[in-house]
Amino acid sequence: MLVQQPGMPGAVAAEGVPRIGVLPSGPRDLISDVPGVTVGHATLDDGDIQTGVTVVMPHDGDMFLRKVPAAAAVINGFGKSIGLVQLQELGVLETPLALTNTFSVGAIAASQIRAAVSCHPEIGRQWSTVNPLVFECNDGYLNDIQAMAVSAEHYAQACREAAVEFAQGSVGAGRGMSMFGFKGGIGSASRIATSTDGQRYVLGALVLANFGRMENLTVSGQPLGRRIVAQESNEPNEPNEEDERAAPEKGSIIMIIATDAPLDVRQLERVAKRSAAGLARTGSVYGHGSGDIALAFSSAWQVPHLASEPMPAVRMVHESMLDPLFDACAEAVEQAIVHALWRATTVAGREGHRREAFADAVPNWRALLANPHSSEQSS
Amino acid sequence: MLVQQPGMPGAVAAEGVPRIGVLPSGPRDLISDVPGVTVGHATLDDGDIQTGVTVVMPHDGDMFLRKVPAAAAVINGFGKSIGLVQLQELGVLETPLALTNTFSVGAIAASQIRAAVSCHPEIGRQWSTVNPLVFECNDGYLNDIQAMAVSAEHYAQACREAAVEFAQGSVGAGRGMSMFGFKGGIGSASRIATSTDGQRYVLGALVLANFGRMENLTVSGQPLGRRIVAQESNEPNEPNEEDERAAPEKGSIIMIIATDAPLDVRQLERVAKRSAAGLARTGSVYGHGSGDIALAFSSAWQVPHLASEPMPAVRMVHESMLDPLFDACAEAVEQAIVHALWRATTVAGREGHRREAFADAVPNWRALLANPHSSEQSS
Amino acid sequence: MLVQQPGMPGAVAAEGVPRIGVLPSGPRDLISDVPGVTVGHATLDDGDIQTGVTVVMPHDGDMFLRKVPAAAAVINGFGKSIGLVQLQELGVLETPLALTNTFSVGAIAASQIRAAVSCHPEIGRQWSTVNPLVFECNDGYLNDIQAMAVSAEHYAQACREAAVEFAQGSVGAGRGMSMFGFKGGIGSASRIATSTDGQRYVLGALVLANFGRMENLTVSGQPLGRRIVAQESNEPNEPNEEDERAAPEKGSIIMIIATDAPLDVRQLERVAKRSAAGLARTGSVYGHGSGDIALAFSSAWQVPHLASEPMPAVRMVHESMLDPLFDACAEAVEQAIVHALWRATTVAGREGHRREAFADAVPNWRALLANPHSSEQSS
Amino acid sequence: MLVQQPGMPGAVAAEGVPRIGVLPSGPRDLISDVPGVTVGHATLDDGDIQTGVTVVMPHDGDMFLRKVPAAAAVINGFGKSIGLVQLQELGVLETPLALTNTFSVGAIAASQIRAAVSCHPEIGRQWSTVNPLVFECNDGYLNDIQAMAVSAEHYAQACREAAVEFAQGSVGAGRGMSMFGFKGGIGSASRIATSTDGQRYVLGALVLANFGRMENLTVSGQPLGRRIVAQESNEPNEPNEEDERAAPEKGSIIMIIATDAPLDVRQLERVAKRSAAGLARTGSVYGHGSGDIALAFSSAWQVPHLASEPMPAVRMVHESMLDPLFDACAEAVEQAIVHALWRATTVAGREGHRREAFADAVPNWRALLANPHSSEQSS
Repeated sequence: MLVQQPGMPGAVAAEGVPRIGVLPSGPRDLISDVPGVTVGHATLDDGDIQTGVTVVMPHDGDMFLRKVPAAAAVINGFGKSIGLVQLQELGVLETPLALTNTFSVGAIAASQIRAAVSCHPEIGRQWSTVNPLVFECNDGYLNDIQAMAVSAEHYAQACREAAVEFAQGSVGAGRGMSMFGFKGGIGSASRIATSTDGQRYVLGALVLANFGRMENLTVSGQPLGRRIVAQESNEPNEPNEEDERAAPEKGSIIMIIATDAPLDVRQLERVAKRSAAGLARTGSVYGHGSGDIALAFSSAWQVPHLASEPMPAVRMVHESMLDPLFDACAEAVEQAIVHALWRATTVAGREGHRREAFADAVPNWRALLANPHSSEQSS
Repeated sequence: MLVQQPGMPGAVAAEGVPRIGVLPSGPRDLISDVPGVTVGHATLDDGDIQTGVTVVMPHDGDMFLRKVPAAAAVINGFGKSIGLVQLQELGVLETPLALTNTFSVGAIAASQIRAAVSCHPEIGRQWSTVNPLVFECNDGYLNDIQAMAVSAEHYAQACREAAVEFAQGSVGAGRGMSMFGFKGGIGSASRIATSTDGQRYVLGALVLANFGRMENLTVSGQPLGRRIVAQESNEPNEPNEEDERAAPEKGSIIMIIATDAPLDVRQLERVAKRSAAGLARTGSVYGHGSGDIALAFSSAWQVPHLASEPMPAVRMVHESMLDPLFDACAEAVEQAIVHALWRATTVAGREGHRREAFADAVPNWRALLANPHSSEQSS
Repeated sequence: MLVQQPGMPGAVAAEGVPRIGVLPSGPRDLISDVPGVTVGHATLDDGDIQTGVTVVMPHDGDMFLRKVPAAAAVINGFGKSIGLVQLQELGVLETPLALTNTFSVGAIAASQIRAAVSCHPEIGRQWSTVNPLVFECNDGYLNDIQAMAVSAEHYAQACREAAVEFAQGSVGAGRGMSMFGFKGGIGSASRIATSTDGQRYVLGALVLANFGRMENLTVSGQPLGRRIVAQESNEPNEPNEEDERAAPEKGSIIMIIATDAPLDVRQLERVAKRSAAGLARTGSVYGHGSGDIALAFSSAWQVPHLASEPMPAVRMVHESMLDPLFDACAEAVEQAIVHALWRATTVAGREGHRREAFADAVPNWRALLANPHSSEQSS
Repeated sequence: MLVQQPGMPGAVAAEGVPRIGVLPSGPRDLISDVPGVTVGHATLDDGDIQTGVTVVMPHDGDMFLRKVPAAAAVINGFGKSIGLVQLQELGVLETPLALTNTFSVGAIAASQIRAAVSCHPEIGRQWSTVNPLVFECNDGYLNDIQAMAVSAEHYAQACREAAVEFAQGSVGAGRGMSMFGFKGGIGSASRIATSTDGQRYVLGALVLANFGRMENLTVSGQPLGRRIVAQESNEPNEPNEEDERAAPEKGSIIMIIATDAPLDVRQLERVAKRSAAGLARTGSVYGHGSGDIALAFSSAWQVPHLASEPMPAVRMVHESMLDPLFDACAEAVEQAIVHALWRATTVAGREGHRREAFADAVPNWRALLANPHSSEQSS
């Protein structure tokens, strides 16, 4: 596999986005660097309706018949996901992973059920029921969330469009999301983990980023948010916007981790928990009102639905080899958050609310990032 | 408060239902013996559609503004509830509790959101979002679950009809449920817990019972199921029905516990866990495919949504006083399960499937219950 | 393998102990029916000192180099075990399992560390440290627990004496334990689980039983304790003894489960939780002051300490095959508790305190067990 | 209360230690800024024996009679603490908190039991037993941990010496600890949390820091470790030392959080979890072999042991006011880690092993911290 070699920590990559950490990336620097994983979006962009749905497909086969080992880590549980109870008991995914806005969870869960029943009419009758799995963030600032505009058709569209190459930023479930006072949304990244015995694994992350107060924004360890705030305090400001930004955090972040390492469910839970380290480094303390949830799955093995099919016999990774995967998880999550911030484009929505793209709002971010003392000097 | 004094353990109460345990009941032997608690049903009974929704109202005020302390215990997580992640983080209910069939969780969650937004347009905008809370069991044997027939109107109807007196058995969410090879559904009971210092509390339970293989049915410690099976083995039997009964358990049970004891969230979780003891005594080992979930709430105090309102200062119960509540929880859950079995009426539904009322199917149950050796003798 | 066929539920086995449930047992009806598992005791019987230590050896090899997959279920956490934090993270045992009295946990943990370091001087230096694993109950009624009489030598003795055949009752860690107002201690049992595809596994249980109020004692579903209390109320009684029995429960039970089924750690946790069903059926509601903890391990595979050794590739059991193991766990635990009660011999200890063997204290137990109405009639 | 006002983020405080974050500190910048909290050490410094014990006293009264509300967060469970099972069930501390080396947990637990029994001979007899609570890290590089040199007398000494003013660095349990390839040990800090309604609370942290690989050391967001490594690569290096530093992480960190905010146990658990954010910002991803455990307690209310004493009725903090405490926790933990690194003095111990004080080893740390490009330039 071709990999992208990292530059120095804190360097700005060729495409104009800060590069996080020291591990190499996979060829796309996307979660789809993990073999078999694809991502699709359906985006609703119509006046007050600025929302959507994003799906992550762990493999292109029948998810109900070939279940995928997975584990979740609830870092802060202010969230309305569906499907985690059964995931935590059984350790498998049996539908594509779906992300959407808070009030559309029910509609998408119903869509997942209908899609599974359509393939397998035995579900809920001769067979057990299917476990939908939907994550959410609240896009109510830009989107008329009360309109519940996301429908089964949007879910189907996102599934159809799932591909190895996919857009980031203000797309799919990320359409109406905000982060650090700027426009947020979908971000993704990947890292290569090399264990001490030379075994190489890919780990990818995809985030739905809708969290953070501007003053806390941290990039590559630099307190970028405080420098921006200090800079703005020297400019004529707009009081209303200021007030809104100062409101208590009501966001969330969903972090999906994929890897081709043959981990068991307990090990996947350990990996998922490391997303908290990457998240913390961007300036989060997992705020009270933030639903911060991570889910990790392995593409290396599958569990058959039918007991008549043979169970796999997988040679697992020795526990002491997990550290490179932990490093990769923290870096990939941090990078995916940075990608969400840099890739998101400006969106105007409900009642004239507007979130600016970060690079438009802070055109001198390179200077602020490079010179840690620019804000102190100016204050 | 008037209480019902127990007879001997295993005795048959005046109304023809075995009485569980030794503690006295509240005046109704229902969860609504806990002051403020009401229950409502909407029942769908139309050919292949045999399903419904049941709501438990912790109080008759505004649930979003006056949140109710609560905790859940996931005894076996093969279930598709929505709302537990946030409940486990924050320890409060902010909607009525809803129970329905597995595939209608999304629709009812959407109804709960709409109802809350209708009262408080600030939700999802100036205020945070609302956490729906819906539990489910799979009624796919009697009900065409794939039809997803339960709608917002049914939820509204169940809320409107909530009252202190309510029906048990084949009603509301219990309409299509099965237990131990017979008709199951809604059951309820209450017990009085008296602590060593003489303080009396009421604890009530309501179950949605949809679990159990006939051979494991145990009532007041008697292996009633095995006696029934032994008796049937001497009769000409119907092979198909036999096969279906022998199928691996795919049911579930939801157990809602209410009390007027001023418990904190940690203590409520401890109480909720004791439902596992009552459940085990009816013949369950929390089967792999059974979603066995308990939730306990206290009616003694509430948490304001708005930080501007004063927080309560509640004198909590000393930990060493919990044992009477633990006993009451186990007994009330066991009794509620027995009530569900005895109160349910025969239902015919999807594709001619039929579940008989227990008392109709086993008319000599008194003899089987009283004489532990009747089956051994007959075999 | 030879198995013992069950009689009818509630029957009294040849050796004069009630037989629980319907599944066949292994040849010894002991945890050591699981291949490789042995048990050893060191018993201290000297006036006020009535205590000891019991070890369960998962295999006879080097436990640090060949770790054993395991999981715990804390049913009620009023307990002072050491070792569960790391067990819950890593899912392996790396020492023999030790059981002792509450105040001797530190001494036995130190003994386990010394024993491991003695074999592997690298521990705590070039290698990581070793995780001791000690469970406890409070034997302070019969034993001068404050004397902290259990020493490293006793641990070594129990390890040396570990064998397939071992004593039950008032031995080892069970020496000073009480249950249901009678003498308690060590009990063990085994059951054969046969999955629907005909695969047979052995599951064994060993309990350290030190819990329960007499009035709650339930055997094979019969409320034996209430019948005993009713019978005693017709006899001249001894007030002090009466008072002591009525005291709030301060006991505990440790339940060790072994199986040769190739389960992963998540599945072992699911099995361990089913011990709560067996425990409930003996009359427990997991009282506030009772440390009720279960641990399940698999003898079918091992995890090498050294990353340089190959990891196993184990063909796991399909989830839908777990139900027979759940049934076996509940039955084996219930039977092991019954064995502890029936096997324990009378012990007198600290300050003249005395606990009678059950069969001596209730010589007419067969009549009480067989005739459910004997007590009601006498009252 | 006098508070220390913060300088700019990343500034170096008057006493020559980098200052973390933006919140003001209490007057001492120590955990003892929380009223009632004291800390004591016993330090063993004798050739190969470089170890000790540290105690945190939540109040100066009788800890068994006046229990302290507390909750733990196990961030990574590779650790051998004792006492967490009961803490997680009951939510109270009933002994002073003790920290020591991994192999001395048993000895200190026994000391805690003896101390409690000495005050209350009823313990383990008429009363329930006492729950010892001991945390540990592995100091085996500098200390002959196999010697198990810490004794009951050292525990008693640390309790006697507990005071508001206490030393940090290579003292008490911190004597033999290492961090980021340098000398580690005890660090402490405090922060003032001001809620939106103007209420001010103190939150203090004390860490036992024994974790981290040099290359990951991050201070105020600056990748100081990589700059040090880059600088060293230009110097003649010492291969052995290099190898040891590159070894997989085998350390741990214990983080004790105290606050005078009247939080309940569920809220304390939420606060404890935020220590993960502070820890991540110093360069940790909660490595596989690191026992990373946090415990938070409130000094604002207490729980009586005896049920005959009145329970408190505490006006709790509204959930939405927790964010300032979350910020304070993350900052205080990060600052305490920095204090541990800067305060620790060089120690030589077992077999000539030696860990240098950070400021001695990296005399130009101010330049490396101030100039983010110094290392890149030199490489």
